[in-house]
Amino acid sequence: MPAPSEFLNYIDSHADGFIQRLAEAVAIPSISGDASHRTDVFAMADWLNAQLKQVGVDTKLVDLGRHVMDGEDLPLPPAILGRIGNDASKKTVLIYGHFDVQPANKSDGWDTDPFTLVVDEKTGRLIGRGSSDDKGPILGWLNVLQYHHENKLPLPVNLVCCFEGMEESGSEGLDDLVIRESKKGGFFDGVDCVCISDNYWLNTRTPALTHGLRGLSYYKVTVSGPARDLHSGVFGRTVHEPMTDLVSIMGTLVSPQGNILIPGVDDMVSIADAEEMQIYEKLDYSIADIEESAGAPIALSDDKVQVLMGRMRMPSLSLHGIEGAFSAPGAKTVIPAKVSGKFSIRLVPPQTPDAVDPLVIDHLKKKFAELGSKNKLTIENLHGGKPWVADHRHWNFEAAKAATRAVYGQEPDLTREGGSIPVTLTFAESLGVNVLLLPMGRGDDGAHSTNEKLDKSNFIQGSKLLGTYLYELAAQK
Amino acid sequence: MPAPSEFLNYIDSHADGFIQRLAEAVAIPSISGDASHRTDVFAMADWLNAQLKQVGVDTKLVDLGRHVMDGEDLPLPPAILGRIGNDASKKTVLIYGHFDVQPANKSDGWDTDPFTLVVDEKTGRLIGRGSSDDKGPILGWLNVLQYHHENKLPLPVNLVCCFEGMEESGSEGLDDLVIRESKKGGFFDGVDCVCISDNYWLNTRTPALTHGLRGLSYYKVTVSGPARDLHSGVFGRTVHEPMTDLVSIMGTLVSPQGNILIPGVDDMVSIADAEEMQIYEKLDYSIADIEESAGAPIALSDDKVQVLMGRMRMPSLSLHGIEGAFSAPGAKTVIPAKVSGKFSIRLVPPQTPDAVDPLVIDHLKKKFAELGSKNKLTIENLHGGKPWVADHRHWNFEAAKAATRAVYGQEPDLTREGGSIPVTLTFAESLGVNVLLLPMGRGDDGAHSTNEKLDKSNFIQGSKLLGTYLYELAAQK
Repeated sequence: MPAPSEFLNYIDSHADGFIQRLAEAVAIPSISGDASHRTDVFAMADWLNAQLKQVGVDTKLVDLGRHVMDGEDLPLPPAILGRIGNDASKKTVLIYGHFDVQPANKSDGWDTDPFTLVVDEKTGRLIGRGSSDDKGPILGWLNVLQYHHENKLPLPVNLVCCFEGMEESGSEGLDDLVIRESKKGGFFDGVDCVCISDNYWLNTRTPALTHGLRGLSYYKVTVSGPARDLHSGVFGRTVHEPMTDLVSIMGTLVSPQGNILIPGVDDMVSIADAEEMQIYEKLDYSIADIEESAGAPIALSDDKVQVLMGRMRMPSLSLHGIEGAFSAPGAKTVIPAKVSGKFSIRLVPPQTPDAVDPLVIDHLKKKFAELGSKNKLTIENLHGGKPWVADHRHWNFEAAKAATRAVYGQEPDLTREGGSIPVTLTFAESLGVNVLLLPMGRGDDGAHSTNEKLDKSNFIQGSKLLGTYLYELAAQK
Repeated sequence: MPAPSEFLNYIDSHADGFIQRLAEAVAIPSISGDASHRTDVFAMADWLNAQLKQVGVDTKLVDLGRHVMDGEDLPLPPAILGRIGNDASKKTVLIYGHFDVQPANKSDGWDTDPFTLVVDEKTGRLIGRGSSDDKGPILGWLNVLQYHHENKLPLPVNLVCCFEGMEESGSEGLDDLVIRESKKGGFFDGVDCVCISDNYWLNTRTPALTHGLRGLSYYKVTVSGPARDLHSGVFGRTVHEPMTDLVSIMGTLVSPQGNILIPGVDDMVSIADAEEMQIYEKLDYSIADIEESAGAPIALSDDKVQVLMGRMRMPSLSLHGIEGAFSAPGAKTVIPAKVSGKFSIRLVPPQTPDAVDPLVIDHLKKKFAELGSKNKLTIENLHGGKPWVADHRHWNFEAAKAATRAVYGQEPDLTREGGSIPVTLTFAESLGVNVLLLPMGRGDDGAHSTNEKLDKSNFIQGSKLLGTYLYELAAQK
């Protein structure tokens, strides 16, 4: 049951209109992290709601309450829940996307106005904030639905939508909604699988399916001593200096080669077997790719499998910075009184924040005790999230693989992401069904950066992919 | 040749007027580091110049040119050079002070308006910005001169003054002036010794003479790798992270006990002999004193001699902070692309920046090479200054000791300061004469802090001390 060729042709022949609709969406600066743009996020919800209704989706806006941001009490933008079809003989797929975007100003270094979609005919890029993250993918679904609505054709599956407007600001309010609606009788009751299109290909050439995300545990370790900042001339070599202690214990966490030196943390993770190693060997990715994306020849290894496993199936520890120390340009001869090192560990199964926290805390306390310092140590976990891995042999993934072969004529890369999309885990745990990440954009889209873009071919072929995936889902036993 | 008792009585009986004059000086907010107060520094120069003329000093204002501060091109406040007496049979002493002050706002945490001198009758404190640093000491000299001028008495020495208005902003323009005027035929030609009153007693009880200052060498060590900041989810455990490398090498510089771990640096300094140890044993100072001033029980040792030697006759290394890393409150999962560690070494003889720099650079390069990182290392020396130690058996010091005994009835502490007063070295090297630091205020005056104060008894007894010192100078052979 492949997608009808009429569908594929329709997508091609309506490309200009689809791009015009994407331009409309990009023009609404729905920046969830900026209080002054909160009305734009609401406007974006209204715009999307109207679009969904126009292509036959039965929708409702769900009030998620209020929150405080930068000291301001604000209404949360609504989530949009929608449904087409309720045929017990069909599978029910839940699709997720977000209609808010990251901040963007021309002065950040954009070549063009971020909220005017620019179609660069030479490169084939659609440039604008949200083009790839995540308005493009949402509009991909609209394109699929428009074909079926205009031609009065039923979808091959029942479709349930969940679109939110706070993803770039911690998905505030969404978890409660998902958990509530996943219960018996809830809006998501009966969902058989989930498809989230909100990440990227590994490279710029090869479609990908993503079956894993790393979790996170973020720490703040504080060393305090003097009652106030001291002058290094007057107090240097007379007192225990908090910075000396902090830098010393921060230096015991990770090796320059990326190995986590906290006893037990790396050990929790199994060694990859031959079958798993093959997945990484097959990925269309090179050391040159990672060095190009980092902008410098600084890969930890010359072996692409090692580097890819470092990102996808191994935990990592990064030192982010120090709060309370001198951080401005210039020279200041201060002994800071209280300094807080920030670091985080990206987690992979079976690691969880609950399992890793005690190892981290014990290690820091032990290393601090070894210093023989009279200063004081405190350790906080600022936030955390569990990792997620899905079964990539599930029919949900098989449907996406078949769709990729049909649309792109190639086998998709089977990836795990180094970062987190917390709602993925919420869907997986609340619904207890397989979740697929099906990216539309490429690895160089610059989702949170300047000059964010979605290649026109990814938008058009990606729309075909989403539609074909629905047909292939229906064909799975 | 002790000071005449009439002089001592005069100081006591004119205390109210002296305090009134100090209030006038404090009321002029001569903040050299704030461009918007530059006219106040000029006003303060005019006020002081008029005061000096009124007590018989032959003065001139010396234009020091212009400079750029915070992007603004500003005229430098003038230096005031003055002279009383030119009797070849008398010694000539050069006195130095500064009439600019540190910034101060009530909102910083002052209990009273910083630029209104408050006389706290209960504690005997004169509270206001500049009361102790350094308007009080300058006015101490005015008090001495007023007695002699009113009573038409010649001074026991020839007096040369050098007062500046940029001390709190790097003494801009002063070095050139001092070097120029120290040459044959210059304003300072013929000076026999120098007295600077711009530091503090070690404690709150015991007058002190200071014969040493530590130097400084300030370093910025930068590790750079990626072309831009990276996301720790995407890049964690795939690339060499600059923060990991920087924290690692910063951790090799100093032990938690204050020992400098850079080979050769501590070794340059001789071990104190029994005679020198005695100086530190005699000092009226306890571990409780240092822990009170630091605000916490964090002294490096329970042995006061060790702690005092750590501050006064040993080098120290302090880690000040990191530029370019995440330093704000909250949690951010960034891999910073370029991070610069700031640290400085306080130097003691025979150390100099020129001698220490190569040791520091070699050590950092060696430790960085050991990491096996593909990132890049650069090292800069941001600024430096040589340490200074004077012969405390010189007649200049003997005069000050005799004066202290006469006014306070006790032997002064013989201290070396952990910090720097760069102009001290300029006077010592340009003139080739003995320089004495003769503090007026106490260790708890809070010179650069909120609620800066000078005890009334220090102002009055200190004025007697300065006058008596001149008589004792004349008595020295």
